[in-house]
Amino acid sequence: MRDVTVSEVGPRDGLQMVKAVVPTATKIRLIEALHAAGLPEIEVGSFVPPKLVPQMADTEEVTRHATTLPGLHVAVLVPNLRGAEAAVAAGAHKITLTLSASEAHSRANLRRTREEQMQVAREVAAHVTARQGRRPMLEAGLSTAFGCSIQGEVPERDVVDMAAALAAAGFDSVGLSDTSGYANPAQVRRLVRAVKAEIGEKCDSLHLHDTMGLGMANVTVGVEEGIRIFDAALAGLGGCPFAPNASGNIVTEDLVFLLESLGLRTGVDLEALVAARRILQEALPGEPLHGNYARAGRPTGWKTAA
Amino acid sequence: MRDVTVSEVGPRDGLQMVKAVVPTATKIRLIEALHAAGLPEIEVGSFVPPKLVPQMADTEEVTRHATTLPGLHVAVLVPNLRGAEAAVAAGAHKITLTLSASEAHSRANLRRTREEQMQVAREVAAHVTARQGRRPMLEAGLSTAFGCSIQGEVPERDVVDMAAALAAAGFDSVGLSDTSGYANPAQVRRLVRAVKAEIGEKCDSLHLHDTMGLGMANVTVGVEEGIRIFDAALAGLGGCPFAPNASGNIVTEDLVFLLESLGLRTGVDLEALVAARRILQEALPGEPLHGNYARAGRPTGWKTAA
Repeated sequence: MRDVTVSEVGPRDGLQMVKAVVPTATKIRLIEALHAAGLPEIEVGSFVPPKLVPQMADTEEVTRHATTLPGLHVAVLVPNLRGAEAAVAAGAHKITLTLSASEAHSRANLRRTREEQMQVAREVAAHVTARQGRRPMLEAGLSTAFGCSIQGEVPERDVVDMAAALAAAGFDSVGLSDTSGYANPAQVRRLVRAVKAEIGEKCDSLHLHDTMGLGMANVTVGVEEGIRIFDAALAGLGGCPFAPNASGNIVTEDLVFLLESLGLRTGVDLEALVAARRILQEALPGEPLHGNYARAGRPTGWKTAA
Repeated sequence: MRDVTVSEVGPRDGLQMVKAVVPTATKIRLIEALHAAGLPEIEVGSFVPPKLVPQMADTEEVTRHATTLPGLHVAVLVPNLRGAEAAVAAGAHKITLTLSASEAHSRANLRRTREEQMQVAREVAAHVTARQGRRPMLEAGLSTAFGCSIQGEVPERDVVDMAAALAAAGFDSVGLSDTSGYANPAQVRRLVRAVKAEIGEKCDSLHLHDTMGLGMANVTVGVEEGIRIFDAALAGLGGCPFAPNASGNIVTEDLVFLLESLGLRTGVDLEALVAARRILQEALPGEPLHGNYARAGRPTGWKTAA
């Protein structure tokens, strides 16, 4: 029984950003621990050229293994059609194609203009939706939807227009991504409303960062606006190489604590999640692990959602 | 021009909690820097027995000096009538008497039952409101209003009843204080509404901690519920000795960033505020300084409220 889906992106967004290449066996141990803690969805890797992101070279093997874990929704990130084909072949349940709402970020991160990447999106959607029988769920992840560290402000109109085009192209879902961590709660409310007005329930997920310390405030407003899928990373690992000074993803443990405090069932065992931090600690001894819940512990008398 | 009042409590709630006794001259330098950054109200000290809290032994001198700073609203904390008398004599503009909504915290922190401290509150209100001519503004600070690390849950009814009794006793304002940092946004909304239903606009301020990482989320909801005074401490110093594991106050810099992002004018110069952290750094070299804004810097293209 679950009211909200916490989508763990640490194995992809977290491990992609650290300098070390974590061994495949360790990744699998981490994914198994996250699955055992009750996380319903895990983004396990990214089908990108290993030359560019060596940390993700084992994504196919990791994906195949993850699909054997009972009940787990296995998500992967892809930048292009080739990645999407590999993701489908590996049996991923959810494929997220990344696009940037900011032209500057699109060129820096994807080396394509927004329009070029929108064409890629159409090809990916055609490829995936043409499949006979069961097909993976298809999400578009709209990076820098709340602002860009290179370009600054990103017009809401651009985000709404891109979301409409992606929904029309056949994407099941358009996730709004605060790549730079610039979002504030008023903006989250405004943008979610504007995108929902255009594409309705296909606007169902948020990918938030905690750069300015507003991650949990933005989640709170997202929940109020009907968002039901939130990305987060164990211990807040991750960020974006083209968003300087952007610190990590929101912390999964803190997100679960907030959602359960709001009376929303996540299905996640918080103590098992905190225990899983040890795997990161051992694998990445130099990496700072974030998180208030892990540091402060469970409040006296605190209860999860019924 | 100000839409919201940021009340800086670092010189009291922050410096009271650190082991070192900060020299009076340094405190005054800090207060002057905070005033110069545009903070409209500063809690400069606490009229408590110096035997118990040596860090606050110079509160009278600090208060007298602070009242010479143009336009500054000088606030002080008091635990009893004797403290209130001293605060009035020193010329404080705002006196906050602290009470606990939790019986266990009241005994541990104040060494009085809640009812005994409520009697103190009536005496303090009688003393202050009986003054001829100008009198300081009188606030009751309701500690552990959102939960207690000793007792756990604090019934909302207790908070509402105490707020009603304090308003009836003549207090101008009842501040709800999340001493343990246990509050969540749904609870803030609920409790503020319940207390406002009882005492109306006298429920105007929140004192929030960031123990569980929900400080900014709680501010966001507080703003939506009409709260217009928020306590915070530069670099998030402070806490409560009887609330184990409770980390510091919400960070003033991050609070100002959030409020301005929401379009609410604070009158505070963020860069001057960040610069004031250096005074803390020099005075308390061992103390960790918190804050996302100070670490991440101003987002590209970010603007303060008009």
